[in-house]
Amino acid sequence: MGASEEALRRALADKQAAIDAQGNAVRDLKAAGAAKVEIDAAVEALTALKLEKASTERQLKAIVSNDGNINTVNRDAFRQAVVNTLERRLFYIPSFKIYRGVAGLYDYGPPGCAVKSNVLAFWRQHFVLEENMLEVDCPCVTPEIVLKASGHVDKFTDLMVKDEKTGTCYRADHLLKDFCKEKLEKDLSISADKAAELKHVIAVLDDLSAEELGAKIKEYGITAPDTKNPLSNPYPFNLMFQTSIGPSGLSPGYMRPETAQGIFVNFKDLYYYNGNKLPFAAAQIGQAFRNEISPRQGLLRVREFTLAEIEHFVDPDDKSHPKYNEVVNLEFLMFPREEQMSGQSAKRMCIGEAVSRGIVNNKTLGYFIGRVYLFLTHLGIDKERLRFRQHLANEMAHYAADCWDAEIECSYGWIECVGIADRSAYDLKAHSEKSGVPLVAHEKFQEPREVEKLVIAPVKKELGLAFKGAQKNVVEALEVTKDVEIFYL
Amino acid sequence: MGASEEALRRALADKQAAIDAQGNAVRDLKAAGAAKVEIDAAVEALTALKLEKASTERQLKAIVSNDGNINTVNRDAFRQAVVNTLERRLFYIPSFKIYRGVAGLYDYGPPGCAVKSNVLAFWRQHFVLEENMLEVDCPCVTPEIVLKASGHVDKFTDLMVKDEKTGTCYRADHLLKDFCKEKLEKDLSISADKAAELKHVIAVLDDLSAEELGAKIKEYGITAPDTKNPLSNPYPFNLMFQTSIGPSGLSPGYMRPETAQGIFVNFKDLYYYNGNKLPFAAAQIGQAFRNEISPRQGLLRVREFTLAEIEHFVDPDDKSHPKYNEVVNLEFLMFPREEQMSGQSAKRMCIGEAVSRGIVNNKTLGYFIGRVYLFLTHLGIDKERLRFRQHLANEMAHYAADCWDAEIECSYGWIECVGIADRSAYDLKAHSEKSGVPLVAHEKFQEPREVEKLVIAPVKKELGLAFKGAQKNVVEALEVTKDVEIFYL
Repeated sequence: MGASEEALRRALADKQAAIDAQGNAVRDLKAAGAAKVEIDAAVEALTALKLEKASTERQLKAIVSNDGNINTVNRDAFRQAVVNTLERRLFYIPSFKIYRGVAGLYDYGPPGCAVKSNVLAFWRQHFVLEENMLEVDCPCVTPEIVLKASGHVDKFTDLMVKDEKTGTCYRADHLLKDFCKEKLEKDLSISADKAAELKHVIAVLDDLSAEELGAKIKEYGITAPDTKNPLSNPYPFNLMFQTSIGPSGLSPGYMRPETAQGIFVNFKDLYYYNGNKLPFAAAQIGQAFRNEISPRQGLLRVREFTLAEIEHFVDPDDKSHPKYNEVVNLEFLMFPREEQMSGQSAKRMCIGEAVSRGIVNNKTLGYFIGRVYLFLTHLGIDKERLRFRQHLANEMAHYAADCWDAEIECSYGWIECVGIADRSAYDLKAHSEKSGVPLVAHEKFQEPREVEKLVIAPVKKELGLAFKGAQKNVVEALEVTKDVEIFYL
Repeated sequence: MGASEEALRRALADKQAAIDAQGNAVRDLKAAGAAKVEIDAAVEALTALKLEKASTERQLKAIVSNDGNINTVNRDAFRQAVVNTLERRLFYIPSFKIYRGVAGLYDYGPPGCAVKSNVLAFWRQHFVLEENMLEVDCPCVTPEIVLKASGHVDKFTDLMVKDEKTGTCYRADHLLKDFCKEKLEKDLSISADKAAELKHVIAVLDDLSAEELGAKIKEYGITAPDTKNPLSNPYPFNLMFQTSIGPSGLSPGYMRPETAQGIFVNFKDLYYYNGNKLPFAAAQIGQAFRNEISPRQGLLRVREFTLAEIEHFVDPDDKSHPKYNEVVNLEFLMFPREEQMSGQSAKRMCIGEAVSRGIVNNKTLGYFIGRVYLFLTHLGIDKERLRFRQHLANEMAHYAADCWDAEIECSYGWIECVGIADRSAYDLKAHSEKSGVPLVAHEKFQEPREVEKLVIAPVKKELGLAFKGAQKNVVEALEVTKDVEIFYL
C-alpha cells in the first residue's frame, strides 16, 4: 500500500470518528434543549466534517481505482471498443458462435491468421534458424505415464468451488481476489488495517492451500457471483483435457498442457543427433490445452492455444554462452526480486550488469532474456510497456534456479507473455526414473583423470546389531546417498 | 482377375486332378501285381505331372505376389531400410519412445520439421495466397453439438472385433482383407472360382455391413491374429477422441476429426467478410485426430496429423471458375469410374477434355484437380506415380456430386493423399438446421423478376376429414416439401 493511500485511509477513519462524535454532540445538544445558535453551529461543524470526508473519499477513490493513468471505467470502455473492432474484422471470433460459443475457445479469422503466421515465421527465424536449434513436432495426445512423470497428473490443478445449488464452478482464488479488489476499490469506509489485510491476501493468493482459501471465503462471506448461493469448500480440479487412446478404453491419455515434455522425452535422440555434445537447444511450436475452470480475459486465458517453446540444455558447471557478448549491452526495464519486495518499481538496467551483479543467475539465462527482448521489440512491443520481472521465491517451482517473465503492460495490467526459467535437470530426471532410460549427457575429459573416492560399503551384520528392525531402512538410505553427502553424515 | 492368372489357376487344378488320377493308377497297378516295367512307367508319368504342376505353381506365384514390378519380399525389405534411415536421422520418431511408444503417434525430428514447414509454407503460398482464400484457425477441442450436426458423432465409426479372451481390438475389415489377400497369394491350390470370390470380397469390403462382415469372418474361420482365439461379432467404434469441456463434466466434446467443420460454422461471417459474394474459398491448416483401432502403415494412418483443407463455396447454378483456362491443358493420369469398373487402367487425359466430356462434374472441380496436380508435382511427386481416381458410386457420401482422390503410388500401393469432392451444401444445411442460424448466400438480380409460384396451402379442416389421425404427419410432410417436388405429388 502506497504511503499516501494509507494516510488517506487513516484520515478517512479519523473524519468518520469525528463525524460520529459531532453527530452525537448535536443529538445531545438537541436533547438537552440547547440554544438554536448553539445547535446551528454544531450542525454546521458536522456538515463541514462531512464535506471534508467527501473530499478525502474522492482523493482515495482516485488512487485505488487508477491503474496507471487510465481509470478503470475508461479503460474497460476502450478495451471493449477494440475488441468489437477486432471481432467485426475477423481478427478473432468466439469459436462455434452459431452454437452460442464455448468459453475460452476462439477462432482466428483471415487477418488474425496472417498475423499469427507472420509471428510464428519470425519466431522460427529468430530462434530456431538463427541459433541452429533442433526443432521437433510431437503429438498433442499424450499417454498418462508421460504426464505422471512430469508431475502434471498430480499437480496441474487449480482450486475450484461450486455453487452448492446450481453446480456452477468458479476458481476459488479468483473469487477471493475479486472480492478483495472490489472491497478495496469501492468500499472506502474500510480501515487502513483492513485494507492492508486485503492487499496481503491478494499478494499471497498463490500460496494459499485449499483449507486457507476456504477459510477466507467463509470469513468474508463470499457467495456465488451470479446467484448469491453458498459455495462448496475449494478442491483441486486438474486442468488437463482427459481422453482415452485406442479402442480398449484402458489407456488413459491427456491433451498436452505444454509442448516441453515432448522435447524432454526425446532428449536421448536429440543429444545423439547433436553429436553427443552440450549445449544444444530444442524447440517446438504447437497446440497446448488447458481446461480452465472459468476462462475470461479474452485471448489471454484460453482453453487451447499455440505455444512456442525452447529447451536449452547446458552443462550445469558451465553456464556461459558463446554469443552472450551480442546481448550484453542491451538495456531495458528489469524488475528484480529485491525491488518487488521493497516496494520499488522496475528500473532500466543492462543485461550484462544484471548478470555480473548476480541478479540474473547466469550468462545463458541472461542471453535468452536478451534474445526475447529483441524478439518482442522487433514485433513492435513498446519498450516502455515491456519489463522482465523476476519470480519471487514463492512463485518458482522448488527445482528452479531462477525465473524471469517478460511482461507486457496492457489493459489487463502487466501480463506474462514469455517465461524464461532455469529449471535444472528436473524433467530429465523425472523421465529417467519413470522410463528407466537414462537421459544423461557425458563429458569426455581431454586427459584421463584418476580420482580417489570415498564410498560406502555397509557391513550388514554390524548394522543389524546396531539398528535391529530399522536396518533395512538404513541400508536403503545409504544406497541412495550420493558421494558428496557422505561427508555430512 | 487377369486372364493369365485365371488360366493358370485352371491349369493348376487340371494338373492336380491328373496327379490324383495317376496316383490312383499307380496304386491300382501295384495292388494288381502288375509288371515292374509297367509300374515304373506309371510312376515316371506321375513324376512328370508333378514337375509340370510345380512349374505352373511358380508361374502363378510370380503373378499373384507381384505388385507392379517389385515382388513383396524385396519391397518390404526395401521399405524397412528406408524407414530405418528416416528414423535414425530423426525425420520421424515413434512418439514417447522411452515409454515404448503409442501406436499411431509419431514425432517429427529436426529434418522432418524442416520438410513439414516447407510443405505447409508452399501450400499456403500456392492455395491461400495465390487464390486469395480466407484462412481461419479454429480450435481442435470441439463441442458435441457441432459434430452431432455434421454426422460424426453418429457415423464416424469403423467396425471392430475383439479377441474374446484377451480383449485385444482389431478392425474387422482389415482382418477379412488380410485373410483374403494371404489366401490369394500363398494358397495356390484354391480354385479359380474361390479366387474370384475372395477378390470380390476385397472389392466390396467397404460396403459390407457389420452383419455381413461377421458372417464372412465366421464362414472363413478367421481368428485373432496373435492368439488364434475366437473373435467377437463386429460392432461400430467411434474414431473420435472424446473429452469433457470445462470443470462441470456436463459438456462432452471431441478432438476434431477434420478441420472443415470449423470453416462451415463460420460461413456466415466469412461470406460477410467476402462482401456477401460467391464464390469464395476458405482454408485451414491444423491438427486432426482419429482414434484408429489398430494403426499400422507408418505415417500413412496415424492417430494425429496435420490437415490442410479448403472449402470453396460456389453458386450451385454456376460452377464455372474464372481461372479455369489456366489449367485446361494440363494432362495427367486419370482413372475415371468407368475405367475402374471395366478393369482398364488409368490413362493420360487433359483435364479440359475430362470436364467437357462430363467425366469430371464441373469446371470448378476440374480447376482444383488441376491445381492439386500442380501442387503435388511442384513438391517433387513423380508424374508417373500420381493419378486422379474418381470415387465409385458406392464410395461417395450420398450428398456428394462427384469426388476425385489424388493417389500416389508407394510401397503400400496407390494411396489417397488428397480428396477433392463436390459435397453440395450438405454441411451448411446440417449446421443451419441444428443451430437455427441460416447459413445461406443471396444473389441480387440485376433486374427485379416477377415469378409465378405454385405453393401448397393446406386446408386443415379438409385434411382432417380425409386423413383423420394421420393429419399431423401429412401437414408436416407438406410443410417441408420443396416447390419443385409439388408436381410429383
